[in-house]
Amino acid sequence: MLHPVVLSGGSGTRLWPLSRQNQPKQFLALVGDRSLYQETVLRANALPGVQPPITVCSDDHRFMVGEQLQAVGVASGGILLEPMARNTAPAIALAALQALRLDPEATLLVMPADHLIEDEGAFRAAVGAAMALGEEGWLVTFGIRPEYPETGYGYILRGDALGEAGFRIERFVEKPDLATAETYVADGRYAWNSGMFLFRAQRYLEELQLHAPGIVEAARKAYEVASADLDFTRVDADAFSASPSESIDYAVMEKTDRAAVVPVTCGWSDIGSWSSLWSVAERDADGNHHEGDVISIDSRGSLVRASERRMVATIGVEDLVIIDTADATLVARKDRVQDVKAVVDALKAAGRTEHLFHRKVYRPWGSYDSIGVGERFQVKRIVVKPGAALSLQKHQKRAEHWVVVAGVAEVTCGDRVFDLQENESTYIPLGSVHRLRNRGTEPVELIEVQSGSYLGEDDIVRLEDVYGRS
Amino acid sequence: MLHPVVLSGGSGTRLWPLSRQNQPKQFLALVGDRSLYQETVLRANALPGVQPPITVCSDDHRFMVGEQLQAVGVASGGILLEPMARNTAPAIALAALQALRLDPEATLLVMPADHLIEDEGAFRAAVGAAMALGEEGWLVTFGIRPEYPETGYGYILRGDALGEAGFRIERFVEKPDLATAETYVADGRYAWNSGMFLFRAQRYLEELQLHAPGIVEAARKAYEVASADLDFTRVDADAFSASPSESIDYAVMEKTDRAAVVPVTCGWSDIGSWSSLWSVAERDADGNHHEGDVISIDSRGSLVRASERRMVATIGVEDLVIIDTADATLVARKDRVQDVKAVVDALKAAGRTEHLFHRKVYRPWGSYDSIGVGERFQVKRIVVKPGAALSLQKHQKRAEHWVVVAGVAEVTCGDRVFDLQENESTYIPLGSVHRLRNRGTEPVELIEVQSGSYLGEDDIVRLEDVYGRS
Repeated sequence: MLHPVVLSGGSGTRLWPLSRQNQPKQFLALVGDRSLYQETVLRANALPGVQPPITVCSDDHRFMVGEQLQAVGVASGGILLEPMARNTAPAIALAALQALRLDPEATLLVMPADHLIEDEGAFRAAVGAAMALGEEGWLVTFGIRPEYPETGYGYILRGDALGEAGFRIERFVEKPDLATAETYVADGRYAWNSGMFLFRAQRYLEELQLHAPGIVEAARKAYEVASADLDFTRVDADAFSASPSESIDYAVMEKTDRAAVVPVTCGWSDIGSWSSLWSVAERDADGNHHEGDVISIDSRGSLVRASERRMVATIGVEDLVIIDTADATLVARKDRVQDVKAVVDALKAAGRTEHLFHRKVYRPWGSYDSIGVGERFQVKRIVVKPGAALSLQKHQKRAEHWVVVAGVAEVTCGDRVFDLQENESTYIPLGSVHRLRNRGTEPVELIEVQSGSYLGEDDIVRLEDVYGRS
Repeated sequence: MLHPVVLSGGSGTRLWPLSRQNQPKQFLALVGDRSLYQETVLRANALPGVQPPITVCSDDHRFMVGEQLQAVGVASGGILLEPMARNTAPAIALAALQALRLDPEATLLVMPADHLIEDEGAFRAAVGAAMALGEEGWLVTFGIRPEYPETGYGYILRGDALGEAGFRIERFVEKPDLATAETYVADGRYAWNSGMFLFRAQRYLEELQLHAPGIVEAARKAYEVASADLDFTRVDADAFSASPSESIDYAVMEKTDRAAVVPVTCGWSDIGSWSSLWSVAERDADGNHHEGDVISIDSRGSLVRASERRMVATIGVEDLVIIDTADATLVARKDRVQDVKAVVDALKAAGRTEHLFHRKVYRPWGSYDSIGVGERFQVKRIVVKPGAALSLQKHQKRAEHWVVVAGVAEVTCGDRVFDLQENESTYIPLGSVHRLRNRGTEPVELIEVQSGSYLGEDDIVRLEDVYGRS
């Protein structure tokens, strides 16, 4: 049976300031209302006879994965938490072990969580062709027929035909220069290496055993002593950290003699930059793509995103990318967006946090947004999801005022437990043990005013937590 | 004696989104820490033997004028409130009447509040020369020696010399086209019409009587029945509205035969646009001027202003103006900034408010900033100045929670009056009469959470107000 594996471990910042380390590209709604991760699991879920998708992600993103999966109503085939990044070969090994536990005949369809595919019909047809090859023991990669001489991707040169839709892989080639890329496109036998694969789980582990036994060994050990944590499977950190950090291409695909490619044209994009998002986005007659509250005067060829409660106006600009968020705005020439990296490096070097998280931070119980700060105070807008609860906690250096503005909050403060209705408030003295819970069916929204000498997130003692964080 | 007259009635939006109708250009700190209005009164105040400046401004801006004057420690020669805009000739007539009441020999130095002068020594020398001519009964205008063929200004052609530094005015010429402007610059006898003037108050009224008697009549009537309001003189609206709306150039200077010009080179700019601010601002080696938190990668020739708690990053951009504020961001090509008008027109047409006021609003008692809004609530950060008090008021449609985060607030709520310390809170039920006062010497800062079905600023019944607003 076919088990989709969604690789969701990336924490890239090429789409900064919208993507941040704690909310990378795959979890953003870049095209339409759903995140790329959600689009990927839905795409997988629509395949005929498919099993629930297995997600491999960073421990840091586990609640986001759980929530986004739930929001689109897709059952989970397991969420495997990587304690640290070890590239794709070990991640897929974990997924193979997970699938084999249920299904010794499992076939894996490996999909990065952050790609866009516009023509799902063409994709489904390619998966069908790949499954036939997978049954025969081939390790299949999906090759995207190149539409232009891209120099940012690796290419796959196909060899002899294997049936109607597949080919042996003759050779993997590194990112070429422009002249070489042009010959590849003209040649017709080259395809972009998409990072999507299909093979039987058992075959993958066999080939991995042959070419990179250290990876199999580490993955087996890490998976054997994995601990269940709510819906998550947290593999053993010590064992996993011993794995070499290698891509599936390097560890297996370039070495096995059973590598095949299924070429496909399916409107694929890895949305690797703001300019690549612009090129797949819907644009008006002037070539502009706008999101949010934008007034554009005589501007062309630009991607403009305004954020909540803020407007962006442009006058006479051309080929720009303008990305506005609550705490940072990027204005870049569209052909220079790869240098977002330089901005992120500058933020890192300065010890700042704008590359790590947004002003609004998601938590398993909901979210908070720091809407105002002063010398000895901070104001947060807090949303608690129905049925959710913050940890039972206390702070050493701050007191808190809570004003409920929507819903009904159950408040624990010291020995007392009581309900707070809309337009009611309470006070949590410094050092008091407290908890906030939403027993209702609508979100609880409240304004928290913190007052104290130190207001960092790390001033928290968790005494009890339903999400296993204490 | 010399009485400076600072014309502060402008409400332009050419520097939108920083300038707004309720806080126009003259009240903004565009160059350095002081506003252009403050720079103007300080410049006037530094002249030898000068009297306190008379300010003419819109009723809407009276508290801002009073506060900015106080902040730089300059005594006021009177703040005249125009009930409506009637252009410069009537405004100067009011100032002349004000000066003459104290000093029948008053000489006026008329200065727009929103100009920049870098070489104050040269300016002072020109004022000295103009005073000599003013004593002889001339109406003197200051002509800026043109540095380039500007097509946005009117020009003055000088005639015969009057002493060492002045000339008769031969002719006023309208804004020229570029070719004509070039001949003016080459000619050497032309100067830019700066909008600054010097003359005896009595002479101005005489000439006005001769050439525009309707203006004198309306100004006299409006001034005679003016009412004192705190430090302000509010002239009579009915009388003033009867005045023709004419500039001093049109009403007097172009018609009198006693018009003189004193040419001057003093680093003058009217900062009429973002590009003109860029051209007078200090710039780095790449020609960029940055204000606030800006990271610039390989960008050139640009003006970038970040706002509080927000950063702006640029990559590879050239000759842009990027102005970021709490609720709106402008990105414009530097040579297209005159089209800011089109954005403001679009905002007006859509019935929006981003051209009228900032998110943070100044009041005579301090300020408020709407830091969060939801369906049935709003969060404001409120600062009350030492000694200040909000009006005694009530709301029909909202309750309020107050949390003091700095200072000590005196709260009136119904029959009770009590102090609220830092980290204390109170609740103002819907319909309750209440007041907030700061009796201390430090600002009081508080977070207000409003809760209700309607949260507009107009849901207020003022029962008592120390600023005359009830």
